[in-house]
Amino acid sequence: MKDLIPMYVPTFDDVLAAHDRIRPYVHRTPVLTSTYFNELTGAELFFKCENFQKAGAFKVRGASNAVFGLSEDQAKLGVCTHSSGNHALSLSYAAGRRGIPCNVVMPRTAPQAKKDAVRGYGGVITECEPSTSSREAVFAEVQARTGGEFVHPYNDPRVIAGQATCSREMLEQVDGLDAIIAPIGGGGMISGTCLTISSIAPHVKIFAAEPQNADDAYRSFKAGHIIADDAPDTVADGLKVPLKDLTWHFVKNHVTDVLTATEDEIIDAMKLTWKRMKIVMEPSCAVPLATILKNKEIFRGRRVGVVITGGNVDLDNLPWMKG
Amino acid sequence: MKDLIPMYVPTFDDVLAAHDRIRPYVHRTPVLTSTYFNELTGAELFFKCENFQKAGAFKVRGASNAVFGLSEDQAKLGVCTHSSGNHALSLSYAAGRRGIPCNVVMPRTAPQAKKDAVRGYGGVITECEPSTSSREAVFAEVQARTGGEFVHPYNDPRVIAGQATCSREMLEQVDGLDAIIAPIGGGGMISGTCLTISSIAPHVKIFAAEPQNADDAYRSFKAGHIIADDAPDTVADGLKVPLKDLTWHFVKNHVTDVLTATEDEIIDAMKLTWKRMKIVMEPSCAVPLATILKNKEIFRGRRVGVVITGGNVDLDNLPWMKG
Repeated sequence: MKDLIPMYVPTFDDVLAAHDRIRPYVHRTPVLTSTYFNELTGAELFFKCENFQKAGAFKVRGASNAVFGLSEDQAKLGVCTHSSGNHALSLSYAAGRRGIPCNVVMPRTAPQAKKDAVRGYGGVITECEPSTSSREAVFAEVQARTGGEFVHPYNDPRVIAGQATCSREMLEQVDGLDAIIAPIGGGGMISGTCLTISSIAPHVKIFAAEPQNADDAYRSFKAGHIIADDAPDTVADGLKVPLKDLTWHFVKNHVTDVLTATEDEIIDAMKLTWKRMKIVMEPSCAVPLATILKNKEIFRGRRVGVVITGGNVDLDNLPWMKG
Repeated sequence: MKDLIPMYVPTFDDVLAAHDRIRPYVHRTPVLTSTYFNELTGAELFFKCENFQKAGAFKVRGASNAVFGLSEDQAKLGVCTHSSGNHALSLSYAAGRRGIPCNVVMPRTAPQAKKDAVRGYGGVITECEPSTSSREAVFAEVQARTGGEFVHPYNDPRVIAGQATCSREMLEQVDGLDAIIAPIGGGGMISGTCLTISSIAPHVKIFAAEPQNADDAYRSFKAGHIIADDAPDTVADGLKVPLKDLTWHFVKNHVTDVLTATEDEIIDAMKLTWKRMKIVMEPSCAVPLATILKNKEIFRGRRVGVVITGGNVDLDNLPWMKG
């Protein structure tokens, strides 16, 4: 019966409360523009640089909201989670700032840079195989052993309310946005975007960008119900996880469309962004630009916010160095 | 007798005129900070991000000042120069904006990314061997053939006045700076820094950072006269050129000290900056941070401006990938 328990759906009041709660622990990240990319796409692009965020990714917004919202009694046992990377280190960072324990289950194949960063923030890692089934099994053991509060990487109203503060900032930083596009994996950032946009700027279109090799959100969106893959393979390592009930609620009700890109298109867009914008960002962040480049007619003449979700890339293992 | 012709020494009025002249063609680049690097060094560091500058480097300031200061008659024949890379593409960019020809002599070993960028801006390249002697010989032929106005990469009052606008912006962007540190190759950026600082903030100390493998400025500074190497070898490819009379004038009179770093120290500082600050920058830009890390006692407790000079790195040939 567990799946039938109704989940609390966060409101924009939760976003406002989250923003006040997390402000001491996160950056208001800058928005960058690029003449080169504007000319290349025919759109006006505004890049929200969460790669410059604390802990190197937007996920610190949701993680901080969850950690600093815990009661003293809840906080004593710490927090725990499973994550492909950035949520693990964001939760470790937030727990470290509050001074409470943090246990994380990570796939053994996660980038070494992310594992190092988790440990640097004081998080304790238990490794699992790179599949949803293994991750959930190992996590159940860790949670039972530690008794920590589970902060799901995306299917959690506290996390979604935290991620929603990113698009709230974008609306303050850029006038007259026509659309926002962000990568979609489990759907936390997109759900937060849906929450903010549907509440205070419902005319702004919301696009989710996904690797073709891990296109469960695309297929779910077209089918009208959640389709989950167990172990998709893509260079965009942050986007391998499936939608869950709460994020599906937001995607289903508020997303304009889901667009996909191939591995080569993602890597080309990533390298081109490094080269022209001089910023270090993860492969996942390149998926929105890759989809804009192959769907120029959708975005031409529009003012488009593009979420650069994180910068925790393994510098010794860049995708264009392979093969 | 050529070497005895006195050169015009630019004044702060020239800097103000340059700033007005180049404003439509260059960015007012952001200043970034890093809690991580502040804790690591014990100083407060303010990174002036000229890697985000038009054409990817501070050199567009001086090049634009020279190009847009030409009379119509002078401009007809275009401009020409020799450069290890960034001045070449900055001059090509500025000439392109004015719509005049630009001929550049570049060492055949210059990063492919820089050659591509020069051609992308419309510059015409003639290659030379990677030595000062070869570069000057090939350039003499190109200049005679084209008749273009020679804009020296650093030993030119128009160029130095342009580079000086960078530290003027830093003083506006950061209160209470105690010191500024920048890389030194030929000395254009450092000379511009000296010009601004000695004119409007003479209490601010000026440090020049140099690769130990190309330490002609260090040895010149200690000896009290210019010492030039013909073909030094360093990963910091922008810093191989020697001081000349005009830049030596500024270095000799206004630099507090010249600090050096080894190749390994430069590469480590470069990689650490990419990893922690999520910015793409050239090896040359890492020399200041490398010298701060090995001379912490000089900078501890101080507010220090660090010039990140450029971001035109070859992503297929990163120094930590070698060997």
